[in-house]
Order: sequence, then structure tokens, then C-alpha cells
Amino acid sequence: MLNETIAAIHPVDETAMAAARAHQDRLTKPRGSLGALEDVATRLAGIAGFSPPPLPQPVALAIFAADHGVHAQGVSPWPQEVTAQMVANFLSGGAVANAFAAQAGASVTVVDVGVATDLDPLLTQIDRESTSTGTGTSNLLDRRTAPGTADLSQGPAMTEAQAITALTTGIEVARTLIAQGSRCLITGDMGIANTTASAALVSAFTGRPPAEVTGRGTGIDDPTLHHKIDIVRQALQANEIHPDDEPLRILSAVGGFEHAAIAGFILGAAAERVPVVLDGVIAGSAALAAAALAPDAVGYCVAGHRSAEPGHTAALDFLGLRPLVDLELRLGEGSGGLLAYPLVLAAVRVLHDVATFDSAGVTDKAGE
Amino acid sequence: MLNETIAAIHPVDETAMAAARAHQDRLTKPRGSLGALEDVATRLAGIAGFSPPPLPQPVALAIFAADHGVHAQGVSPWPQEVTAQMVANFLSGGAVANAFAAQAGASVTVVDVGVATDLDPLLTQIDRESTSTGTGTSNLLDRRTAPGTADLSQGPAMTEAQAITALTTGIEVARTLIAQGSRCLITGDMGIANTTASAALVSAFTGRPPAEVTGRGTGIDDPTLHHKIDIVRQALQANEIHPDDEPLRILSAVGGFEHAAIAGFILGAAAERVPVVLDGVIAGSAALAAAALAPDAVGYCVAGHRSAEPGHTAALDFLGLRPLVDLELRLGEGSGGLLAYPLVLAAVRVLHDVATFDSAGVTDKAGE
Repeated sequence: MLNETIAAIHPVDETAMAAARAHQDRLTKPRGSLGALEDVATRLAGIAGFSPPPLPQPVALAIFAADHGVHAQGVSPWPQEVTAQMVANFLSGGAVANAFAAQAGASVTVVDVGVATDLDPLLTQIDRESTSTGTGTSNLLDRRTAPGTADLSQGPAMTEAQAITALTTGIEVARTLIAQGSRCLITGDMGIANTTASAALVSAFTGRPPAEVTGRGTGIDDPTLHHKIDIVRQALQANEIHPDDEPLRILSAVGGFEHAAIAGFILGAAAERVPVVLDGVIAGSAALAAAALAPDAVGYCVAGHRSAEPGHTAALDFLGLRPLVDLELRLGEGSGGLLAYPLVLAAVRVLHDVATFDSAGVTDKAGE
Repeated sequence: MLNETIAAIHPVDETAMAAARAHQDRLTKPRGSLGALEDVATRLAGIAGFSPPPLPQPVALAIFAADHGVHAQGVSPWPQEVTAQMVANFLSGGAVANAFAAQAGASVTVVDVGVATDLDPLLTQIDRESTSTGTGTSNLLDRRTAPGTADLSQGPAMTEAQAITALTTGIEVARTLIAQGSRCLITGDMGIANTTASAALVSAFTGRPPAEVTGRGTGIDDPTLHHKIDIVRQALQANEIHPDDEPLRILSAVGGFEHAAIAGFILGAAAERVPVVLDGVIAGSAALAAAALAPDAVGYCVAGHRSAEPGHTAALDFLGLRPLVDLELRLGEGSGGLLAYPLVLAAVRVLHDVATFDSAGVTDKAGE
């Protein structure tokens, strides 16, 4: 399915993009006055293949959850079982992603692609105690590749077969959501220690040194940050990573199951010509893998936000994507993508709802 | 009414802000991981005087429209009658502000505080031809102070009595919208050449030189920009502006009717302890006037976005406000404020909907 999906990804439609640009210039607003939003509307026309493109709704968030063997190296102050506990929190509607999804009108699908802790006791508890405080609704897909990756600082985090399984899961989730009617996808993630894998992926795909692309994740002190940088460096050495390695080898060696799944999710969206709003550094590093596998997939991505993690800026720069929201978020879960979504919707709405100079009887700027 | 309103503005509530910060630290997310959004939620608690503050809805946009005598100096490529034509466009639902307001669920009130062109023929045409292509709905308030200001480059743009009339209009519109149930206000503006008045206000209130705070507005070439800077410089000289002048004197000398009305709108919101989301440079320069009249009013403002206009950044820096959206918008109408509104709503929603570590059974970070 991976190769078939990659083969189905074509460049975005330049003709439709030109039509969207021309249409925006006829609307009752100074040319270019919606700044970066005009680029978003143009991109969505290119994705759809016509202008104006459909409004990107309904919208669906998929949160891919997994654990990481590198957690044993002390790169995070959070216990590993928090990944599973947060999966339960998503399902009971109590997480930030649920609150933001409820506001954005997004469905929430939680996908276990490799959580290490047994989820069953936690899920039973949800039913029994009904701890829900949120308004979002979630459902869980069990697509566990393995109970967490191996420790990437000691050797490959996963086998190539496991990476393909997780990639395929992402593709399937994208296809299913689109088959159910979604016209916009948002990436989400949950995985304690997953910014370590992200930093390793960003370093491997962009060639930037670990010290430049490794950050504090959800909040670590200076000694832990230095240790984390060492671990990323060690991971690249232990796996003998070179910039010209095959994408699948890099992803398997230093990625996580959620990174592989999100890469597949992006490929699945691109193959179906549906826009995918990227969340933070986990999505950004996964997008590097997707772009390495299928360069044209980048055209189907909208960068939701710029996270506080330095590796995210490095990934966005490498991909040539401009983030819409830039508020020093460092939460993950899809929170930044959900916050950006109304901006994407508004950008396209302009093409549908705003009057032209002619139709509204508004005089155009002198000389145009 | 102006003095009474100013007297009713008190500092935001520090105790409520501390409670909001403490509450956010107990929620199932890493501390501080929502970045600037946590500051927004804290600010809204301070405005309300308790935590969690009410969700900032329903929300109301007021677009204050007026013309400018300085238009005669050739500072804009747009004919002056476009102000009136755009008022008609707002009322028929065809403007960008209508599209964004419809998405945000905001009501739209258009206030004529000094349009130079007779609106009646345009409004009749709307009824006859039903040109509406948008989904927002607008109503018009006739509060015309005068048919446009005098040319600020030759002397005072308005009398102090006119400035007080426009300020009072803004206060009354804010009070009326709040009395009707609005729990969040958004500023909007329409006025060909109004970025010239904004630049003069920003220079006067911040002490920054005209060349640093004058921009291309909705799009002018280099020669026109240099001319516009000269006009701003001339306005400050002709009116003998000094940084220690009375705020009302500065506002009257180099402001516009919509600037005065928006300053009043901000004061009215602050007096009623309701948050007001500022749009771009017109709102930013009006907020400088409001802050000069009542320094505590700044605490009730949320900077919606950072416009492409350099004077806007200067105003925000002076006021100590951080913009939420930064996408090189240069449209006005309230468009940037409307785009920022879901971020404000989401920030407060977190305080209402997200589970605590205890309630969700999620383990906290080590050592906390």
C-alpha cells in the first residue's frame, strides 16, 4: 500500500493556483492585503485542482500515540505511563486537544500505534467513573505495532517492517477519514520522549547538528537538555546515519511509531488530494520523512504552527512551509493544528463569500 | 460621559489572574505549554475579576467608518468614495469582514462616524439589487460627526468637541453591545487614508519619528510612501505636537473620527470589564489615545494581530501588547481581530473544559 500511495501523489495544480490568485485580486480588498492567508487559499486550490476549492470541512484530527525505548535514557521528566494515561484522557474528553477540537468542530480519532502500557485497565476506568469534563468526543483504534520502540540511542528504534506497518496505518487512517467525508485532516501525537526522536529525525533529514535541533520538549532543565543532545548525537552515530541514506532507513533507525504513522497520514492525504494541517515538531519531523519518500506530498501540507522546539523551525525551513500560528506552544496532541484550522477555513471562505469590485460597485485602486 | 467612563476604569484583578495561572498549572498539560495563550486566559480572568472567566461570547464587531481631509494630499491610490462604497459592501454582506464574522459567529455593527460621501443612494441600491454574496449580517448606525475630518497636514483634523463626540459614540456603541449581551468586542475600521492619521498618532504618542512608523497602508509605491512620510511630518509640525500634549489635543489634531470612536469603544469596554480584541494599526493607534486617557484601559485589550504597517508594531510595543496573529495582513475592517478571536475563545475554554491531573488520573512530571 505504501508504494501504491506514493505513486498516487502528484504535484499540486498550478493552473488552479493561478486561478485562485487571479480571483483574489478581483475581490473587494486591496490586492495581497490578506497576506499569508492568500497563499493558504491558493495552496488549497492547488490541492483540490480547481478554484475556488471546497471549504476544508468537515475536519478530522487523528492523534497517533506511541512510546519510545529512548525514554530509559532519562530524556524526559515524565513517566512513560503518561502516554497511556493521556490516551485515556483523550477518550474521556479531558485533554486540551478535546477542548480545541470541540471548538473547531473536529472529530478526534486516537490511534494506538505503539503504546507501551496496557490500556485496558485505564479504559475500563473511564467507563466506570465517567471522568469526562470536555466536550470533544474521541474513539480509539488499536493499531499497536509493538509496545514502544527500541532505544534509538543503542541501535534501530524499529525494523523497516515495523516502520512500514506504522506508515501503512497512517495511510489507512487518512483514507478512512476521507472516505467518511473529511475534507481536511489535522495531525496529532502523544508519546512521552517523542521530541528526542523528532530531533534525531530532523538532524538526519536536514543535516543540521543535534545541538541546533534538540529542544526542551515539554520542559527540561539545562543538564537534561545537554544529556538529550548527547543522546541524539549517540543515536545518529549508533545507527551510522548519513544524509543520503534511504528515507525508510532513517525513519526506522531514529523515528517513533507515531512519526512513521504521521508520515503515512500525510502521504494518504496527499494521495487523496486532501489538505493536511501539520501540528508541531512531531509532525514537522514526520513531514520530513514523508517528503523524502514523496517530495510532492509537501504541497498538500499546511504548517499549523511553529512550536517552541528549535527542530521544528529547522524542519519547516527545510520544507519551505510558513507556520500560521506562532505562540510558543509546546504541547502537541494536535493543539497547534486545531488552533490554525479556523485560519485555513477563513482563507478559503474568502474565495467563496467575498464580493468582487464589479459585483459590489466598489471602485478599484487608481491604475488597476 | 467621557469623564464618567474614564473614572469607571479600574486595573484588572491581580488575584483573579493569579488564580487563573494556578489553575492552568493543575491541568493535564505540561506547565506553560500553551505559551502565549495562557497569558490570554490569565488576562481575561483579570478582566472578569474571577477565574475561570466567562467564555468571551457572544462576540460583536463594530466597524467605525470615516473619511479624512488629508486624502486631498494624495496619500492613497484609492478614491475617497470607496469608504462609502465599502460601508455599502459591509451592509450587503460582501466584504472580508462579513465572511470572517460569519465564521466567528460575530455580529457586525457598522457605525458611520464621519463618512464624506452621501450613503443614501448606495444603501437604496443594496435593497434594490440585493447584491449580497456573504453570510454575515450588518446593521448601520448613523453617528456622523462631520463629512470627513479637516486636512491634518494643514491644522487640526477636528475640534476637541468633535473628538469628544466621536469618543462618546464609541463608548455608547460599546455599552449598547454589552447591554445586548456581548461578552467580547472586536474593533473594526474603514476609512480611505486612515493609515496616515494612524502614523501621525503613533508618532505623536510614542515619540518615534514619522519615517519609522509610516507604512504603505493598503499598498503604495516608494514615491507615494516618501510623500506620505512628509505629510505626517508636516502634520506634526503644523499642529505643533509635543509628546507631553494633552491626549485629547493630540487625538483632535492628527486623528480621525474612527480613531476617536475606537478609542471610546476601548474605554467603554474597559469600564464595563469586557475584553476588547484590537484589529490592526488603526486600532493600535486608537488604543494609544485610550491608554493616554486611561492607562488602566490597556489591561482590557487583547492585540488580535500584527499588521504589516510599521506603526502598528511601534504602537503594540509601546502598549506592551503581544499580537496573536502575525500574517502580514493589511486590510483592516476588523479582519485581524476576527481571525484572532477563536484563539482568545480557545484560551479561555481550556480553563473550563480541560481535566486536572488529579481528576484524570494522569501522573504529573517528576518533582512537581
